[in-house]
Amino acid sequence: MGRVIPLDEVREASDYLTPLFDLVADDMEAINRIILDKAVSDVDMIPQLAHHLIDSGGKRLRPMLALASAKLCKYVGSGHIRTASAVEFMHTATLLHDDVVDESSTRRGKKTARMIWGNQASVLVGDFLLGQAFKMFVDVGSMSVLRIMSNAAATIAEGEVMQLAAAKNTSTTEDEYLAIINAKTAALFSSAAESGAALAQRPAEEQSALRSYGKNLGLAFQLVDDALDYSGDSQRLGKSVGDDFREGKITLPLILSFRRGSSEERVFWNRTIADGDIKEGDLEHAVSLMKRHKAIEATFERARSYGTIARDALAIFPDSREKSALEQVITFCISRTN
Amino acid sequence: MGRVIPLDEVREASDYLTPLFDLVADDMEAINRIILDKAVSDVDMIPQLAHHLIDSGGKRLRPMLALASAKLCKYVGSGHIRTASAVEFMHTATLLHDDVVDESSTRRGKKTARMIWGNQASVLVGDFLLGQAFKMFVDVGSMSVLRIMSNAAATIAEGEVMQLAAAKNTSTTEDEYLAIINAKTAALFSSAAESGAALAQRPAEEQSALRSYGKNLGLAFQLVDDALDYSGDSQRLGKSVGDDFREGKITLPLILSFRRGSSEERVFWNRTIADGDIKEGDLEHAVSLMKRHKAIEATFERARSYGTIARDALAIFPDSREKSALEQVITFCISRTN
Repeated sequence: MGRVIPLDEVREASDYLTPLFDLVADDMEAINRIILDKAVSDVDMIPQLAHHLIDSGGKRLRPMLALASAKLCKYVGSGHIRTASAVEFMHTATLLHDDVVDESSTRRGKKTARMIWGNQASVLVGDFLLGQAFKMFVDVGSMSVLRIMSNAAATIAEGEVMQLAAAKNTSTTEDEYLAIINAKTAALFSSAAESGAALAQRPAEEQSALRSYGKNLGLAFQLVDDALDYSGDSQRLGKSVGDDFREGKITLPLILSFRRGSSEERVFWNRTIADGDIKEGDLEHAVSLMKRHKAIEATFERARSYGTIARDALAIFPDSREKSALEQVITFCISRTN
Repeated sequence: MGRVIPLDEVREASDYLTPLFDLVADDMEAINRIILDKAVSDVDMIPQLAHHLIDSGGKRLRPMLALASAKLCKYVGSGHIRTASAVEFMHTATLLHDDVVDESSTRRGKKTARMIWGNQASVLVGDFLLGQAFKMFVDVGSMSVLRIMSNAAATIAEGEVMQLAAAKNTSTTEDEYLAIINAKTAALFSSAAESGAALAQRPAEEQSALRSYGKNLGLAFQLVDDALDYSGDSQRLGKSVGDDFREGKITLPLILSFRRGSSEERVFWNRTIADGDIKEGDLEHAVSLMKRHKAIEATFERARSYGTIARDALAIFPDSREKSALEQVITFCISRTN
């Protein structure tokens, strides 16, 4: 007989995360405890500010990737727990600094830490969390994980600087954009995914397979993020549609619309993005240009193609519950709507 | 017969650094090359901004301590070079973030990076340098050095947050001030000094002796810094006398003057520091109150007493050129005028 399933319950993108959630549920409890524990400081402002972001309901995708990778590689030990916690701390530190650099006022539907405690505290607590992350990596004791993670830390910052340098520059190419998201987003996904193989001391080909999986997954994730910024549902996204437009951030939907557009349209892009002169109705016009040139569609299409690369990267592993969970994360990343 | 030596050449504080300079001169050339090399990035802004600060004529005291400590401990190898370079990168990263947090406009007599490239770039390039520092520590391959340095990174940030939380608070105690400078300044001095013993795998007592030397040297250094902010020569200091006063930063000269002062004087301190309401002539009045209560003198006196502790910490080492150079650094720190 069955029950009548409302249409929007049939297949939510987040359903594709369920196998991953189930796989790492026990470990994630341990991680949540460690995160609470390591955000502690005698300096009141540190746990307050850190928890504001840590408790704000992020999906914890990056630490889950680290855990699933360790399980896929049959790692025996407890180092993956600390590694995954530290990955989440690195990510949180990056978000704190990002919000200062982007002058963002909301994240995940809440006021950003900098709006409550100020830019200064956000910079310094970010530094503290990064320091704590490295302490945890040291505790794990794997030189190989330390190498992966210190590379990621430098690369992420480099990507953020590249993004800052490209801001408002409408002639940024797709390749330059790719280099930016590869550094600022994909580097941490790939390090998280690689860490399990490194901990388990698996052969080099498995380590690179997971690195490649994580990198391409991260690219897909960021491409979708950038597409949703022009097409998403503000309520569900926890941030406002058009944030990137208002900040003059150069993302693929804009790059493609600019390149595919008429010279008249380029005048519009240069006024709004390069000069930051945004009037009532400009965002709607921007979105309509993107639709005209199928720029958002093309961005999702690029995401799917990186998703395919990520899937192929995993192919060398025999079928398993872990592999299937990691594959479904790809489907989540390319089909998510928030 | 000899030449006539002008009085001000007889004994400059910096003369006490000469034995250290001589001891590490060759290694410092290698370090300067590594620093140039590791500040490289395809992202133009990174080397530009990093070099602005790196080339600005800092004394490189912290990396020299790391080198001298390695020599004192008869370390054989090349890891001390990379360790010392990474220590300087950590320090540079801290300065970049500090200047953003303090909204400083000059450092070492030059415009701060944030005044030229902006706060955003300063935050991100600081993150990049910290990432590069950790990559270098990983290259050294000593888990013990990594442990020391990741602890230092978290502690320094914690100290900066403590300092931010204490800003403008005239009721801050000397103990609270000590906790702040212990974290924000002494932690890196002590880690640098300890690193040589850690690399050379010397017994625990030598490692703690050097850690204690570095910590107390760092305390003395910061105390003198804070005293000079009210008594130094702006030209030679490369920063303006009274910066701390104008920023409402709580340092020992102020803490002592507040505590030793009359209730009328406390009204003055609360207006200028807590409320930030500073009028023409207030800095001069502040300095005269400090003189009345011998607050600057007492700050130098405290510095000398930490200097004594630093000297005693070194006592377990047999006499050597290295030990003597490290001892003279103490004299430099407590007698410097810029």
